Amino acid sequence: MADTLYDLDDLSIGQRFASRTSVTVTEERIKSFAAEFDPQPFHLDHEAAKPTLFGGLAASGWHTAAMTMKLVTDGGIPIAGGIIGASGELAWPRPTRPGDVLRVEAEVLDITPSKSRPDRGMITMRIETKNQKDELVQSFTVKMPVPRKAAP
Amino acid sequence: MADTLYDLDDLSIGQRFASRTSVTVTEERIKSFAAEFDPQPFHLDHEAAKPTLFGGLAASGWHTAAMTMKLVTDGGIPIAGGIIGASGELAWPRPTRPGDVLRVEAEVLDITPSKSRPDRGMITMRIETKNQKDELVQSFTVKMPVPRKAAP
Repeated sequence: MADTLYDLDDLSIGQRFASRTSVTVTEERIKSFAAEFDPQPFHLDHEAAKPTLFGGLAASGWHTAAMTMKLVTDGGIPIAGGIIGASGELAWPRPTRPGDVLRVEAEVLDITPSKSRPDRGMITMRIETKNQKDELVQSFTVKMPVPRKAAP
Repeated sequence: MADTLYDLDDLSIGQRFASRTSVTVTEERIKSFAAEFDPQPFHLDHEAAKPTLFGGLAASGWHTAAMTMKLVTDGGIPIAGGIIGASGELAWPRPTRPGDVLRVEAEVLDITPSKSRPDRGMITMRIETKNQKDELVQSFTVKMPVPRKAAP
């Protein structure tokens, strides 16, 4: 966990965060994740993946999303109350491949205190997942509830 | 797999699909998925989850998304070429709980043949994940590339 946990009033638009760790994507976990949750040929087998849109073995987008969440919760975005997504826009502009090393960059896009609840608000963050070539493999622009200290 | 695989010209706006199977969410898998990908108290422990926004143990949204994908790939949406999401809007209006039984309903919202590539197009589908009480736990409105047979 990070040393400092931010609440709504500690955050500012344009504030940026980055993952404190990275994750190396293994072929074994790509295949086992896919076998459980997304058993399609392009996530399971090199040869079967070649003639598909992916042109080779690629991780399920949900695997990329799950690995991203691990990077975020490892102190990447130190929000008090935890990292809870309500809704968001998700895109996978490029596949995640075996051997890729993923990291996360995030930016606060919007901050909206609740009108009815003084102890919380909603922020919008753009959470970008990049590989070792700084190529974007996932973008998630997400609304997250954030606690707010009571006014003194 | 489903018996019939649809290509772009087989699909129509308003066409609906449903999962052919359901999945029962176990507490064990909620916790093990979270331990690997989303290790936050509300996904790991009943007691620790009580004072949080979730009010009790809940599955990671990415676990719900992954289980949804499994329902979709088990013949739920029989698209030729596979189920590939390019981007979409994702929302989790309600938590997934231990013991929930999830199923999927999907509807074609839009169909756009490619202007540059006669052998493909893009569709927009709304994929809804519901629990045993018919409550919506996830909505994903996603753009998916779909193959198209060459014109005769």
